[in-house]
Amino acid sequence: MISNSPAILGPVTTTDVRDCSIARTLEVVGEKWSLLAVRELMLGSDRFEEIVRRTGAPRDILTTRLRKLEAHGLVEREPYQDRPVRHRYRLTALGWSLAPVLTMLRDWGDTHLVGPEGPPVTLRHTCGELLRPRIHCAACGEAVTSRDLEVVTDGTSDRG
Amino acid sequence: MISNSPAILGPVTTTDVRDCSIARTLEVVGEKWSLLAVRELMLGSDRFEEIVRRTGAPRDILTTRLRKLEAHGLVEREPYQDRPVRHRYRLTALGWSLAPVLTMLRDWGDTHLVGPEGPPVTLRHTCGELLRPRIHCAACGEAVTSRDLEVVTDGTSDRG
Repeated sequence: MISNSPAILGPVTTTDVRDCSIARTLEVVGEKWSLLAVRELMLGSDRFEEIVRRTGAPRDILTTRLRKLEAHGLVEREPYQDRPVRHRYRLTALGWSLAPVLTMLRDWGDTHLVGPEGPPVTLRHTCGELLRPRIHCAACGEAVTSRDLEVVTDGTSDRG
Repeated sequence: MISNSPAILGPVTTTDVRDCSIARTLEVVGEKWSLLAVRELMLGSDRFEEIVRRTGAPRDILTTRLRKLEAHGLVEREPYQDRPVRHRYRLTALGWSLAPVLTMLRDWGDTHLVGPEGPPVTLRHTCGELLRPRIHCAACGEAVTSRDLEVVTDGTSDRG
């Protein structure tokens, strides 16, 4: 009866779980190795063995992750050899649209997880400077911080 | 002997794995439920039971994730009750610095995983418009796309 006791917390129902685009995105790319596979494809690796080697992912798990990315339309696969059949992988436009997510993951690591030797890789912007990415508002163009944002939920207030 | 056969791929050594800030960041927050716990703390939940309820995370796994976030300095815990001891959780400044990562994960889901009913939650910028986040270069202020970036590796070219 404990799990149904309203005296403590009320009954837990599935509607208590917040429906949110972050959770939905993580359902697609949040499993271990998925985003590293996407990174590797962005950096030019296109063969399974190369992605294994550069990410360190276990082969069977990477196979599953690539199939899932393909099923969701982020990755395309084409055969480049017949016997045995081998495939080349590449990102679709949808896959490439994850670049801002990876840019911000990279920036967090560059900022907080890097010693005096500096980041293992940096990105140079066409302006000539190394990229320090900042989030701006598309509407007004201004830089955005958490303090500038108000959470807007729908009428039920149970989504977020 | 297959795993050591240089005829196929050459020996796989740990130095083949790309050292990269994305991988380092995912080592800290890339496990399932970690980023959703951070989201929940950003949205104001501060008790374990509330985070369980709003994320749907299994209790034992969430406990492990929160301890890891605490060990890495992203989360602080303070007791608010003695018998039994219960804790309140809150993000540190380091934890809050993940906001841009979550903003971009949210934006990807808003853009690609939302039906005609619209996003379950939106953020309003102080300018009055709903936030559509864009990455800009801190140096020149311009909006950045993948095409504007060049990957710079160090001399070994094995890091990325």
